[in-house]
Amino acid sequence: MKRTTGTCYYPEHWDKALWAEDARRMVEAGLTWVRIGEFAWSRIEPTPGDFQWEWLDDAIEVLGTAGLKVVLGTPTATPPRWVADKHPDMFAVDVDGKQRGFGSRRHYCFSHEGYQAEAARIVELFAERYGANPHVAAWQTDNEYGCHDTTISYSDAALKAFRFWLKDKYKTIDALNEAWGNVFWSMEYNDFDQIGLPNLTVTEPNPAHSLNFRRFSSDQVVRFNRIQTDIIRKHSKAPLSHNYMGRVTDFDHYKVGDDLEIATWDSYPLGFLEDRVGADVSEQRVYARQGDPDFQALHHDLYRAVGKGRWWVMEQQPGPVNWAPYNPAPLPGMVRLWSWEAFAHGAEAVCYFRWRQAPMAQEQMHAGLLRPDSADAPAMAEAKQVRDEIANAPDVAPYQAPVAMIFDYDAEFAWAVQPHGQGLSYFSLFFETYKALRKMGLSIDILRPETRDFDGYKLIVAPGLMHMDESLKQALTKANGHVMLGPRTGARDGDMVIPTPLPPAIEGLDVIVSRVESLRPDMPEPIAGGGAVTGYRELLEGSVDVVLRSKDGEAAVVSNGDVTYVAAWLNQTALRRVLAPIAEGQGLDVLDLKDGVRVRDTATERFWFNYGASETEYDGRRLEAASVIREERSE
Amino acid sequence: MKRTTGTCYYPEHWDKALWAEDARRMVEAGLTWVRIGEFAWSRIEPTPGDFQWEWLDDAIEVLGTAGLKVVLGTPTATPPRWVADKHPDMFAVDVDGKQRGFGSRRHYCFSHEGYQAEAARIVELFAERYGANPHVAAWQTDNEYGCHDTTISYSDAALKAFRFWLKDKYKTIDALNEAWGNVFWSMEYNDFDQIGLPNLTVTEPNPAHSLNFRRFSSDQVVRFNRIQTDIIRKHSKAPLSHNYMGRVTDFDHYKVGDDLEIATWDSYPLGFLEDRVGADVSEQRVYARQGDPDFQALHHDLYRAVGKGRWWVMEQQPGPVNWAPYNPAPLPGMVRLWSWEAFAHGAEAVCYFRWRQAPMAQEQMHAGLLRPDSADAPAMAEAKQVRDEIANAPDVAPYQAPVAMIFDYDAEFAWAVQPHGQGLSYFSLFFETYKALRKMGLSIDILRPETRDFDGYKLIVAPGLMHMDESLKQALTKANGHVMLGPRTGARDGDMVIPTPLPPAIEGLDVIVSRVESLRPDMPEPIAGGGAVTGYRELLEGSVDVVLRSKDGEAAVVSNGDVTYVAAWLNQTALRRVLAPIAEGQGLDVLDLKDGVRVRDTATERFWFNYGASETEYDGRRLEAASVIREERSE
Amino acid sequence: MKRTTGTCYYPEHWDKALWAEDARRMVEAGLTWVRIGEFAWSRIEPTPGDFQWEWLDDAIEVLGTAGLKVVLGTPTATPPRWVADKHPDMFAVDVDGKQRGFGSRRHYCFSHEGYQAEAARIVELFAERYGANPHVAAWQTDNEYGCHDTTISYSDAALKAFRFWLKDKYKTIDALNEAWGNVFWSMEYNDFDQIGLPNLTVTEPNPAHSLNFRRFSSDQVVRFNRIQTDIIRKHSKAPLSHNYMGRVTDFDHYKVGDDLEIATWDSYPLGFLEDRVGADVSEQRVYARQGDPDFQALHHDLYRAVGKGRWWVMEQQPGPVNWAPYNPAPLPGMVRLWSWEAFAHGAEAVCYFRWRQAPMAQEQMHAGLLRPDSADAPAMAEAKQVRDEIANAPDVAPYQAPVAMIFDYDAEFAWAVQPHGQGLSYFSLFFETYKALRKMGLSIDILRPETRDFDGYKLIVAPGLMHMDESLKQALTKANGHVMLGPRTGARDGDMVIPTPLPPAIEGLDVIVSRVESLRPDMPEPIAGGGAVTGYRELLEGSVDVVLRSKDGEAAVVSNGDVTYVAAWLNQTALRRVLAPIAEGQGLDVLDLKDGVRVRDTATERFWFNYGASETEYDGRRLEAASVIREERSE
Ligand SMILES: [Zn+2]
Ligand SMILES: [Zn+2]
Ligand SMILES: [Zn+2]
Repeated sequence: MKRTTGTCYYPEHWDKALWAEDARRMVEAGLTWVRIGEFAWSRIEPTPGDFQWEWLDDAIEVLGTAGLKVVLGTPTATPPRWVADKHPDMFAVDVDGKQRGFGSRRHYCFSHEGYQAEAARIVELFAERYGANPHVAAWQTDNEYGCHDTTISYSDAALKAFRFWLKDKYKTIDALNEAWGNVFWSMEYNDFDQIGLPNLTVTEPNPAHSLNFRRFSSDQVVRFNRIQTDIIRKHSKAPLSHNYMGRVTDFDHYKVGDDLEIATWDSYPLGFLEDRVGADVSEQRVYARQGDPDFQALHHDLYRAVGKGRWWVMEQQPGPVNWAPYNPAPLPGMVRLWSWEAFAHGAEAVCYFRWRQAPMAQEQMHAGLLRPDSADAPAMAEAKQVRDEIANAPDVAPYQAPVAMIFDYDAEFAWAVQPHGQGLSYFSLFFETYKALRKMGLSIDILRPETRDFDGYKLIVAPGLMHMDESLKQALTKANGHVMLGPRTGARDGDMVIPTPLPPAIEGLDVIVSRVESLRPDMPEPIAGGGAVTGYRELLEGSVDVVLRSKDGEAAVVSNGDVTYVAAWLNQTALRRVLAPIAEGQGLDVLDLKDGVRVRDTATERFWFNYGASETEYDGRRLEAASVIREERSE
Repeated sequence: MKRTTGTCYYPEHWDKALWAEDARRMVEAGLTWVRIGEFAWSRIEPTPGDFQWEWLDDAIEVLGTAGLKVVLGTPTATPPRWVADKHPDMFAVDVDGKQRGFGSRRHYCFSHEGYQAEAARIVELFAERYGANPHVAAWQTDNEYGCHDTTISYSDAALKAFRFWLKDKYKTIDALNEAWGNVFWSMEYNDFDQIGLPNLTVTEPNPAHSLNFRRFSSDQVVRFNRIQTDIIRKHSKAPLSHNYMGRVTDFDHYKVGDDLEIATWDSYPLGFLEDRVGADVSEQRVYARQGDPDFQALHHDLYRAVGKGRWWVMEQQPGPVNWAPYNPAPLPGMVRLWSWEAFAHGAEAVCYFRWRQAPMAQEQMHAGLLRPDSADAPAMAEAKQVRDEIANAPDVAPYQAPVAMIFDYDAEFAWAVQPHGQGLSYFSLFFETYKALRKMGLSIDILRPETRDFDGYKLIVAPGLMHMDESLKQALTKANGHVMLGPRTGARDGDMVIPTPLPPAIEGLDVIVSRVESLRPDMPEPIAGGGAVTGYRELLEGSVDVVLRSKDGEAAVVSNGDVTYVAAWLNQTALRRVLAPIAEGQGLDVLDLKDGVRVRDTATERFWFNYGASETEYDGRRLEAASVIREERSE
Repeated sequence: MKRTTGTCYYPEHWDKALWAEDARRMVEAGLTWVRIGEFAWSRIEPTPGDFQWEWLDDAIEVLGTAGLKVVLGTPTATPPRWVADKHPDMFAVDVDGKQRGFGSRRHYCFSHEGYQAEAARIVELFAERYGANPHVAAWQTDNEYGCHDTTISYSDAALKAFRFWLKDKYKTIDALNEAWGNVFWSMEYNDFDQIGLPNLTVTEPNPAHSLNFRRFSSDQVVRFNRIQTDIIRKHSKAPLSHNYMGRVTDFDHYKVGDDLEIATWDSYPLGFLEDRVGADVSEQRVYARQGDPDFQALHHDLYRAVGKGRWWVMEQQPGPVNWAPYNPAPLPGMVRLWSWEAFAHGAEAVCYFRWRQAPMAQEQMHAGLLRPDSADAPAMAEAKQVRDEIANAPDVAPYQAPVAMIFDYDAEFAWAVQPHGQGLSYFSLFFETYKALRKMGLSIDILRPETRDFDGYKLIVAPGLMHMDESLKQALTKANGHVMLGPRTGARDGDMVIPTPLPPAIEGLDVIVSRVESLRPDMPEPIAGGGAVTGYRELLEGSVDVVLRSKDGEAAVVSNGDVTYVAAWLNQTALRRVLAPIAEGQGLDVLDLKDGVRVRDTATERFWFNYGASETEYDGRRLEAASVIREERSE
């Protein structure tokens, strides 16, 4: 399969007279895919039961006959006003107890049964009408689940469903009380119907309560999506997808992905750097026009896992966006670079959001491939360059990276419930570790925590899995590669209770975490020989080799044979000091990439990226600012 | 007309035995005006229908016979508790949906019909009783509309009125949907009764929705005020006024002013510097005891426009206030300086707030001309000095400044709805441009956006008018003076949609804004030759002369003949680099004022102000700290 | 009486099989006291009227027969879910009007009559059953009144009770209107039933309204506690106590203490430094593992006053806690140091919280003397060292310090209502003054504002008493020692009104505060000769000696004979410049303690503490890091 590109188009926003010329220009730009329909409910069903399909029929026909493949989105992220009038309590409720209203998008609670029925109805109608349409080559369910903090709702509908979910899980209220330790502050319930939602409590709720509510909320997204996929499959053979949003981690994407053929995600490198990467201010300034060099790469690897190998970028930022605190334009070359970073990680397709900048409504400041006046926007030239380069590049091909990292949504939930120190999060720990590996020039596969077969990986890295199934522990200790765990590995049982024997309880690693502490960001604990512990550390007892030691004498990293345990949150210097020797010991070629230079391997090529705003050089290679070069791999 | 001074007095706060002596001391202090009555409803009508007029009759008599002229305020800003008991839903509702309660002031929603009737009733009674009173020389409606964030209310009353207002404006729901682009996220309505208020949405509402709600909210203030003015005019020939509050810009003061003879405003330089000027921390420290050197001047010029030439300072800070984050005392001399800055800008009167410091209730820490124990507070001596200086100064006289700036409340609303970058506001853009002109020693007239006759102005400056009527564009391109526009000029049509052809679409200026971007505050774009773009810029296409260029090659300021377009938010250095040559080219004398030195011209004099805390010198003049000197003008 | 130690234990959290061994190890660790029961309601009465006393009977028996003395807590801080189901409006309501829910602790409003009855019922049952139990040697009412911001509730129950309280205080509504100055903004009421709570007003409420609501809220805590003490006393001769929380100052602890025999408090030095001391960042970093050197000492002195001489530390931090923004481990030695600091201040007992770290629920990250797996945690060794040291130390003995400070909860309320400058608080003013005295090596008694006999004190310091009874003024002016007052002494009458003659109105001190101002933190006013005024100052008039003068010429500190008035918020340097000469003049030995070195005297010994992380030296004494040494006193 050749790599492909595409775009997101809203025929309902434009005069029908523009469609054919738009389609022609899309084809000219080398685009294969055009996603449509996902916000169009009010134009399909302007009033209850009054259907206006013709325009969509025509749009698909115009696009399809021009040579484009349509990705058809179900419109459930934006139910019309009249749907909300029928179900006045269908909205999510925020953590302060305020109902969120109509007037933007994603205005529904995943647990609302009335809305679930409305969504099923409209999806069924879409699927019946277009399931066999030859131009509809793929489907997208809804749009960006969880975006705008919409996974978790404190509504009555959520409360009712949560109690049902808990009853299903724990069977008896005594079992729940016991598992959660509700005796602690006389929080014991006599009945499932007494359980509330974990917001608005006087001080923090029981972490077991909060964690279960997060797990429940995640399951509700999976359930909502499955309602749609069950329906579409009855009518269509085309692959199903959903477009996940960057660093929306409050539901389990793997589980949603189990019901889909393709994972896609929406990649806005500049907006993300401003509002969610977590970079420090100096990094935000250096990369303001390029985005973080590793944040997108991490997501590419993650969605390759979520998509079981098949994944796209469904929305690629093509210029300034409208929604970040600051919205600069990308450096010339970045749209091409971002596209190739995705392809280098195995993307089948990269679609630019959006075709033409909308002059109206919420995203009127969001750039497109075209300006509002239909002239080419700056991204268009780069999209065409990518078109030409794809033509001369090899096909998409499977490739197993030498390094694996386990990313676990449940760990993200648990850390969110109990970070222990302000600002600590699982995602950040994972991201910093990922970054350290990537600065070593290593390509990475992200694996889900259900993985038990680690064959072929030289190095398996799994920081922060607060709960770790015994079978995963077993599989890791039996893996051929080197395994790096911690901090907080196995720190809690499945109900958020500290287990005895104390963590990490890894076979063959004679060590226990006897005490933990979180640290002020301004008091890092220096490590002897370089690097530092920041924010969090564990004090260990046991008989193991000490790999790194804090200057105060405490072990920061220990190992036994092929298992390394990291008992602290390490900074980049310290991470490299641990990881580089292990990787070299496993025969991997470890680079020392500076500033914005990064690499990524495919089965046949090595890609070199320069995220820097200036030309640079690595080992004889000249790397222009904001550029990518491809080299054949000599493995 | 001689310039005059006055004070604000609350006879109801003091033993009646004090009134005559207070009046005598007011006259001794040279005061002409005494404003009373505006918070006295509970003493006039302590219970429904039980009227106690005698004390107010007596107070007016005592003050009037002592030689003072009374400004009588309508008491509608503080309805008594029993009014609220009759109308339990008369309160405004905040953006979070919480009803704001009784216990301070301004506790009403402008849209509440029941309260409108109560207000009309009490105003009618005031007007009937005092409309012909010889001592009542002027009226004030209500008090500080909009203060404490009270313009915008998300109440049911507002919702009902907003729907009515929208129906009146758009006639059909289809027209509204089309104008707003509601198709965007299936936000289309079937009926005006489906439209909600633009708060509590999941993510941002349609900017057209928000902008219309702001325009509506502004109109509700105008409407509320007009209810009062229509009634008072039936009974009184005295001029009507309202005291606007500094940087309360969420309703259109010009439109309120159309129903009044005199605009007044409340000037608290030290409080404002702490809580609303937007100065950086070092400027806040330098001017903590003087206030910003330009903020009051801007308001003086603005209210001269709002009052169609007739304007006062109704409340002048006389010492420390109670309401800012920090409340220092002014430097000795500042009360005099502030008074003269107002007179130099054409004020008819400056009234000190308040006569005697109240020992009780919310403003007990707010200084007056007297201390709570009736001794003179420090401001008294300065008020007396002003009295003596006025006596030897020329009359108030009309004067047209050489420079005009257009201030547009609708632009303020539009920027508030869509700043594009965090911290960007129309007011700040306007203020920084105003400051640059004032540091050049130029006197400025502020004009409303309905102005079409620009005769006599050498330079007309109108930054940031996001929507600009075609007729204004025409008038500006035909003006004799040099016109400076941008950034964001004409960036939206009247319904907050990006127009095609792209902005600014100024006749004779071959340039379009092809892309915009907002910038992190820590990444200014330097301009070749000095100065920088900060926060926001536009990328241009077209054939024009480039006046200033960013170091990365992009045009920052362009011109054609007598029209200059500024495509960026410029810092002070860059603003001077653009404005000074234009002003000099127009024959204006451009100064280079440093630190706290400022000038302002009248028809016959030039005033020199030193806001600095140290003595300084300009061109041979010695300027004491916190002082003002007058010079005859040699034009 | 020998000094004693103890711990807090939750038999209901552990298998009954563990109790005897736990008790044995407690005795081995030298512990005398074991506090139990305070969160156990759901295990005593799992459903309404179904009582399960046996386990608690057994627990007391096991502990008592092992040789421990039981402190039995009433379980009213954690009513079970079914209590809340009976009284769905028993929860407190926050300042935003949101009801706080079930799921943690302290989920009740002090004013709710239904809950008061439930609390009385369960306390009666506890008292009846255990009042004569020989092992129950003391009682604790509830747990940490006011913790988690629970003193003040804006509930309907509070509203009803507040109106009743006001009517009882003011008798007539006219008297209330007059006292509060409600005429100010037409806030006059016709009836007590019109009075609301002082939240959700448009701008700030009348400070008299707010202050009365704070006084009422304080009284409600006193009243709630007295319900319990009245009941327990009917059944038990054992002393009653309550465990106050550090810097919870929104109710009057003295008044609660009047109904108890012993005051105890919960001392978490590291958590406090992070979340409530108010130290600057550099101090937070330096003492992150030790806690502030004075904050606990202040509380020790305060609770000696609250307990009328009898006081304990009921919960002593033994390791990292779970609830602060960052939760580091203490330096080795600090648990011992903290224990001895308490004993040096006269504590009868220090109890470590908690015995064994709980693996479940909200405090699973809170260290204990034991780890969750029952191994000794690091604190155990230090507890045992304290055990040995107590054995060789003198008995607890009364000791009057040479210096007295008056701490007034009502002043804290008044400053909270009207800080005048952002960040100013009475507690901080008091704390900084306390710190200055302690750095001079002086031991301090804290006195309540009802004190009239100051015999034996060389120096009496009372900053910030915004309202000061005439009789206290008289007593102070007649005291033998030197008296230091101000700033803000007597600044308000009992109804929060500025009195005339102006403050401070101290007999024999010819000075009035003619003006006050608050200052930006970045603009301190330097004092001639060293030190500075920060944040707040008063300008004085009158004939007094000026002790310190600001560089701008204003008096900062004045005196007449044995009365010194401080007209400003002074920094540490300036405080020392005022206080050291006075103390020396009174014959006191003034030290100049640096960094973390502190002393505290008892009747027979001087204790030297080093809070520093490094060894240091004072006057020939070698002080190890985080250590304490005792010396016999040579008075
Ligand atoms: Zn079907
Ligand atoms: Zn009339
Ligand atoms: Zn009894």
